[in-house]
Order: sequence, then C-alpha cells, then structure tokens
Amino acid sequence: MAEELSFGTAIGTSDATHISLLGQDLAADLMGKVGFGELAFWLVAQRRPTPAETRVFETVLVALADHGFTPTAIAARLTYLSAPESIQGALAAGLLGGGSRFLGVTEDCGRFLALTLASAELPTTDAGFDELARVAVTEARAAKRFVPGLGHPVHKEQDPRTPVLIGIAREEGLEGPHLRLFQAIGRVHPEILGRTLPLNGAGVAGAALADLGLPVDLLRGFALLARAAGLLGHLAEEQRNPIGMDVYTTVDRHARYEPRS
Amino acid sequence: MAEELSFGTAIGTSDATHISLLGQDLAADLMGKVGFGELAFWLVAQRRPTPAETRVFETVLVALADHGFTPTAIAARLTYLSAPESIQGALAAGLLGGGSRFLGVTEDCGRFLALTLASAELPTTDAGFDELARVAVTEARAAKRFVPGLGHPVHKEQDPRTPVLIGIAREEGLEGPHLRLFQAIGRVHPEILGRTLPLNGAGVAGAALADLGLPVDLLRGFALLARAAGLLGHLAEEQRNPIGMDVYTTVDRHARYEPRS
Amino acid sequence: MAEELSFGTAIGTSDATHISLLGQDLAADLMGKVGFGELAFWLVAQRRPTPAETRVFETVLVALADHGFTPTAIAARLTYLSAPESIQGALAAGLLGGGSRFLGVTEDCGRFLALTLASAELPTTDAGFDELARVAVTEARAAKRFVPGLGHPVHKEQDPRTPVLIGIAREEGLEGPHLRLFQAIGRVHPEILGRTLPLNGAGVAGAALADLGLPVDLLRGFALLARAAGLLGHLAEEQRNPIGMDVYTTVDRHARYEPRS
Amino acid sequence: MAEELSFGTAIGTSDATHISLLGQDLAADLMGKVGFGELAFWLVAQRRPTPAETRVFETVLVALADHGFTPTAIAARLTYLSAPESIQGALAAGLLGGGSRFLGVTEDCGRFLALTLASAELPTTDAGFDELARVAVTEARAAKRFVPGLGHPVHKEQDPRTPVLIGIAREEGLEGPHLRLFQAIGRVHPEILGRTLPLNGAGVAGAALADLGLPVDLLRGFALLARAAGLLGHLAEEQRNPIGMDVYTTVDRHARYEPRS
Repeated sequence: MAEELSFGTAIGTSDATHISLLGQDLAADLMGKVGFGELAFWLVAQRRPTPAETRVFETVLVALADHGFTPTAIAARLTYLSAPESIQGALAAGLLGGGSRFLGVTEDCGRFLALTLASAELPTTDAGFDELARVAVTEARAAKRFVPGLGHPVHKEQDPRTPVLIGIAREEGLEGPHLRLFQAIGRVHPEILGRTLPLNGAGVAGAALADLGLPVDLLRGFALLARAAGLLGHLAEEQRNPIGMDVYTTVDRHARYEPRS
Repeated sequence: MAEELSFGTAIGTSDATHISLLGQDLAADLMGKVGFGELAFWLVAQRRPTPAETRVFETVLVALADHGFTPTAIAARLTYLSAPESIQGALAAGLLGGGSRFLGVTEDCGRFLALTLASAELPTTDAGFDELARVAVTEARAAKRFVPGLGHPVHKEQDPRTPVLIGIAREEGLEGPHLRLFQAIGRVHPEILGRTLPLNGAGVAGAALADLGLPVDLLRGFALLARAAGLLGHLAEEQRNPIGMDVYTTVDRHARYEPRS
Repeated sequence: MAEELSFGTAIGTSDATHISLLGQDLAADLMGKVGFGELAFWLVAQRRPTPAETRVFETVLVALADHGFTPTAIAARLTYLSAPESIQGALAAGLLGGGSRFLGVTEDCGRFLALTLASAELPTTDAGFDELARVAVTEARAAKRFVPGLGHPVHKEQDPRTPVLIGIAREEGLEGPHLRLFQAIGRVHPEILGRTLPLNGAGVAGAALADLGLPVDLLRGFALLARAAGLLGHLAEEQRNPIGMDVYTTVDRHARYEPRS
Repeated sequence: MAEELSFGTAIGTSDATHISLLGQDLAADLMGKVGFGELAFWLVAQRRPTPAETRVFETVLVALADHGFTPTAIAARLTYLSAPESIQGALAAGLLGGGSRFLGVTEDCGRFLALTLASAELPTTDAGFDELARVAVTEARAAKRFVPGLGHPVHKEQDPRTPVLIGIAREEGLEGPHLRLFQAIGRVHPEILGRTLPLNGAGVAGAALADLGLPVDLLRGFALLARAAGLLGHLAEEQRNPIGMDVYTTVDRHARYEPRS
C-alpha cells in the first residue's frame, strides 16, 4: 500500500560524504570550532548561543555537575558494582534519581518564576520586581506551598554558588527578569515568611537558564546533562577506588528483620 | 556497636559555607572559569586538562553528540511520549541503547589499539607503526574478528570526521601512539584484508581519547556524555515537533500477526 | 566513632543455612507451594492473599501484560538491538515508558475512585453508588478534567477485558466499593458528559487492585510487573524474528530535514 | 512513494472488539484461566507450558524474587527517594543492577551446561554425566575459569534452595540433562578442584529453566522478572518504612575526602 512517511527533524542528516548538524557541516564548521557546552545549548534551543550566553550556560553546568555522594551517585556506583559490563546501565541508573526530590529545584524554580512573570506586566524596576515577588510569595504561603529555590539543607545562610552565578550573569549582560525576580524574592520573603532563607544555587541556575531563553520544560534536562559528567567522575572513581561493595555490605550487615505486627 | 565507616572520594565535599570540587573551591575557582568539557575531563581523569587537551576532548564530544534518528534517539522520544513527566526516564532510556552495537566503536577501537600497543615495544617511526599494524590486522583476520574502527555503514569511502579530528590532535600536539597506530592500520589493512575501508570517526575518537590518557574502560562513558547532549536536543524537538506518536502508530499500523507454526 | 546503624525490613533475611522471606522459610514453605503471582501480592501487601484474591490479582496481571507494539515494546526492542549484551537495559528501557500517558490509567483510575470514596460516606446500594458517581463525574467535568478510566482509543464501545474482570471479581466475592463505584460511573456518565464511553479495562484493573486492598501509590508498579512479562516476550521475539532494525531504518529512511525558520 | 512495511509478531493483535494474545482471545480464554507465571512462560517460549512445567517455572521465580538488601534493592530505594513520582524509574534503576556480578549465575550456569552438553553425545546414565562433568570442570580449571554455579558467598555448605528445586523438578518429571549434568558437577568437582563447593540455588534455577526448554539467552530475563516482584516489595516497604534517606545520609556522613596524590 502506498505510504507517505515523513519524520521531520531540524537536528541533522548525513550521507556518504557529509554529516550536517544544526544546518552546519559537522566536520568543517563545528568540530574544533564549537565547544561541547555551546553545542548542547544549540541542540536544545535550535540557535547558536553568543559567547556571553555560552559562558553563563557552562557556569550553570559546572555548578550542577556534582554534589558528592548523592543518592544518584550511590545508585550509579551500586549499579556499576553489580553490572560492570554496562557503563550505560550505571549512568542511566544514576540519572533516574534525577527527579523531583533532589534535582527538581532548578526546574521548579524556573517554572515558578516564569509563571509569576507571565501573570503580570513585566516590571522595569527593582521596586516593581519586589512588588511582584511579594504577591508570589504571599500566594504560595496562602496555598501552603513552598517557594521553590528558597532554602538549602546545608547552606543555611548562603549558597556559595548564588552570588557567583548572579555576578557572572550580570557581567555578561544576561541578568534577565527571572534572575531579577528571584533576587527580589530573596529580598522580600523574610517579612512574609517570618524567616530568612538563602537563594538555592540550583534555583539560581534555573532562573539563569530561563533568562537564556531555554525552555522551562527542559530545565531538568540540563541539570541531568551536568550531573552526567559528575556521575562519570564517580564511575571512574568506582573503578579505581570502589565504595559500592562497602555501601552494600554496610546496609546488609545492619539489616534488621522487623516483621509487621 | 562501634563502627568505623569511611567512604573515600577525591571528587568533593561541602559544608555550610563552601563547596569544594576536585580540590578547588567550586564557587571561587571553577564557576565561570572552567568550561563544562574541561570539568568533565577533570572529573574523570582527576587532573586538570591543558587547553590543548580540552580542545581535542571537546572536539570528540562534538563529533559524537548526535547521529540523527538513531535507535537511541527514537527510544528516547518514544519514552518521552509515554512518560512526559519524567525527562530523566526518557534520557535514561535513550542512553541505555548506548551499547555494543552502535556505540561500541569508540571503546572497542580504543581498547584494541591499547592492547596492541601493550603487546610490543612502542614504535617510533611510521614504518614501525605500520609493522605493528600489520601484525594486529593479520592476527584479527586469523581469529576471524573484525578490526574495530575500520569501516562505516554510511561513509564507505571516508568518514568526514576522521581527517578533521586527526588534524586537530596534530595541531594541538596530541597525536599520540593510539592515533598513529590507527592511521597505520588505515594504511596497511588493504593488502591484508583485500579491500579498503575508511577509518570510522567514532573509532578515531576512541584513539584520540586514549592518547589523552583517559581510561579505556570509560571511553564508552564519554560517548554517552556526548550523546546525552544530542538526546536533549531530540527531546526538545519532541516537545516542539513530535514524531514519537507517528513512529508508534506506523509500527502498530503495519503490525502483522504471524503465528509460529 | 560508635555507630548504631539499623535498616529495618520485613521482607527477609538469610544466613548460611536458611533463607527466610516474609517470615517463612523460602525453601521449605514457599518454593513449589506458593505461586509467583501470590508471592508478588504478598511481597507488596505484606500479607498472604487468599486463593480468591490471588485469582483476581493474576487476572489483572494477565490483562495488563501486553498490548502489542506499544511505545514501550518498541523502545525495548530498539534498545536490545543496540545493546544486546544487556537484557536488563532493554527491559529497563521498556519499563521507563510505563508512565502517565499509556500506563497511567490503572493508577489514575484507582486513585480517582479511592479519593471519591474517601470524600463521602460509603454507599451501600447501587443507587447510592450512582449518586456518588454523579457527584464525582460532575465535579471532574466542571474542573475540565477527564474521568480516568472512561474511554479507550481502540475499544470504543466496550473493552473486552472489562466484563470478564468484573465477573471474576464478582465470582470470587471481591467486587468491592471501587469496582462498584466504577460501574456506577459507567452508568451515570452519559447523562452528564453527553456521550457514552466504555470502561477501560486497565481502569477496571485499578479498581480491582484497590478492592484487593493494594496501595494506590503502587498500582502502577503492578502494571509494570505485568508489562515486564510482556516485554520479555517481545525480547524473545526480537531474538528470533527481529523488527528493531526495520523500525530504525524506516524512521531513518524517512527522516526529512526541516530546519527551523 | 509506495511503501510496503510489515512488522511481524506472534504475540498479539487487537481491534475494536477483541484482544488476541498468543493466538487466544485474551478476555475469553486467558483472563481468570491462565496464571501470570504460566503466561510469562508462554509469552517467551511461544508455547503453553504444561502444569508440571508451570510449577517448576514458578518455583524458580519464587526462588529468585528477593535477596534482601541487595545492591539492586538499595539502588531502587535510593531512586524512589529521589524521584518518588516515577515508580517506573525506581524499578528500572533496580533492574539495571541485574547484571553479571550478582544476577549472572542463572544465565552463566545455564549457558555453561548447555555448551557442555552440546559438545558431546548426550549421556544416558549418571556415570555418563559424571564423565562429561569431569571433562567440563577440568577444562574450566585449565583455562583458569570458574565453573558458574559452584559456590555461594553465604551458603558455604549447602544452598537451601538447591535440594528443593531439584526435588520439585524430579517430582514433575522435568529433571533433564542440564540438571543432571549440574548435579554431576556437584559430585565430581571436589576431586578436581581440591575443595567442595555447594551448588548455587540460582545456578540450579538456570539449569531448571534450560531443562524447560527456555532459551539460554533469556535466562537472565527470567531472573529479572522474578526480581521485579521483589523490588516492588522493597518499594512498597520504602513507602511505609523508608531506609533510603538513612542509607544516603550514612554514606554522606562518612564521606572522607581523599585527594589523589
């Protein structure tokens, strides 16, 4: 039966002599000329980032790449212990922990800021942003919801990544409405919530990515890309200096049978 | 019961006011100063790459980031269609296809070259590398095994990535024994195999990564990191211009029930 | 430093001579005496199901095990094509598609019914269930939300699984409030929604599992267990009579480069 | 362009009024009449198992379903902690640990026995099996390879599952050449290896599955199906009585920064 199939893509094609990617010749135009972070941005946004945008973007990725023995890193190492023949399995298992609880801040914060900005006229002054921030924080409080990006379990006074990321965005002329609104939230929330919380660096990352025009629905994807590098570091270390077996035997050794009554 | 647990890591630690990564202060020394590709290399090799090494490394990642509608990209898109609430699931599903059949060349080639180099004295001239290459190709042929990295299903004459990657490694002074041996294999194999095959770009990538001193057992990990960026590009496109449903319905529509006799 | 670690579990323990599972001796009490479906129920609910409960439970699993070339089955096959050395990767990739879009009905329906039942006094008559159903459907409509479990993309008049599953639950004395409420929804919704939709068999499965006392937050898990069996069937078939390469080449062959304007 | 696509499957089809599975009407012939274990066997082997075969098959699944706090169970729990919105992610992460190190015995043993049987004429007496076993064990020893299925890290004298599984296979008339050869290996290896090792229950499972005619290349798949049930049990327990956070904080708390010299 006649069939007219078509699967459209703007990413790339290849034939016997050429590989094109994003409308460029991969070999002639991209390799050795475009950085990996730059390409990742380009692949998602479907436009080439400026050097300023690339700098902020790579700063975000570096900020999110690793957080030590996170549940994701431990899961990746345990999987590598059990299935060393499949690096892709260990990496995938680690990334599967990149969900709402520990990796959600970047996306949740970006989305919260985006929705807030979409709900009103765009402020032009800090005072305007403060006003919008007051509304948003007050509404969240009334709905008994946390403001995503406020607070950090360890960095209780200041997340060291926060001022650096904001500073670099500012240097590069990319401190946009999401970052400004998030800083406004930082200013106004104590009077509403009754306590002062730091701006979570991963939340600032979400604001920065949104100000780069990257889609809110993919912010978690960038955190995952960053984390993939960190996980490869953990897997390399697991090859050299493993802890997976120790984690397993520690849990197993201290297992206590507690039947349900 | 007294318990002395210790899980050693050289990657990083954090406390209330500082995050250290690879012995550096993340916020003060790395963010905005170190690129993402540079950090990925550093995380795995546990040493900071030189600018020359970073350039070759990022060229490899760019070369491997995407290949259009690969089985991995299709699987990622199908998973995103089915579970759009979990970007991490779609990314993981795509990466799980990064196995031996389509993503194995980089690692297999790097390992083949490394084992060959380990089996003899290190050649110093092209003629010496040619000799070692002849031995390796002849042995593979006798054992009825393919030489990893020779040949490409599409680029039957030349893989466009190959001369560019070799050229950049040479420019940066990082054309080491793996790359030299692989080029020697390119020169000598026709007389042994009876036909001329191109050097696969993904195989050259493996040789280049090995010449950067990166561990052979993690070469596939770098291909996966590169591919993660490509997969995010596909997922972004799936959000904007989906093909997942079309793929699914195309297969489903043409399903033919063929009972086993 | 002294450390008192304890990881409690009610599932099982083992020592050199015995393996206990769920408070039983695995070898002496379970193997050959307890079926796999029965054990799966027991592992999750932490109580042994009656024969009647086991029959309904296994009926649900059989009903949900396979749906032909679903996105999950295709993704599993593509992953197996790419990484045949890792059955666990192919199975995992398939299961990762078990998300909201195609595998959500069982859980969503079970949850909807449970929440509705929790919001009112438990009806005792069909008329009482009809009344509660009217309220639930009306509220969903007002909130512009679909009633989970109503409708099926293929079985537009009746899902063949529905009457059978309800019948077996009834036979076994396990037609509880969730199933009764779901049938009431089937009766009353036409007058409210203005059209008649079939009860989705996977939704009935959710109601049946909830009537077995299984936790609503794990209903998707049972659909995944069932689907794991179906996916193994697909992987076995992919080994014998592969379609993965055909799917891949079909998509690749019909890829059309459509740059963004 | 005219296109003749066809994706053959022997698993099933469905239309508006019927769902067929394995050549049967799912609703009329399978639901409530065929057990889940029976269906799983049928889906893979593409033939309906006899009651005797079903009993042995389900015994194997029950024997392999859970082993307490294995690396896979811990990884699944950590992933559920991090991404509780995705049961499929937590289950997939757990299954990804089902690789060579801890879940390989079933498949490796089944394959070893199958290859050994294929290399010689089929013995008919215990003495004949002993002879074949001697050859196999001696060859493995000479090649410095372990005999898969011999030995267990915990059950150093006897794996309690072993005599039960063999006994049930014998009861059901399904003690075939793989099981006979494995028992012969149990008898003869002490004189060759110089020590006595128990027959690993998971290895016996592989032999039993092979004697059921199930494909060697899918033996790991059955172990994974069994383990999926165990993992659901762990995830249910994690919902009620979590340990994931404790595992994570235990590792994190005892992390020690050990820079590479």
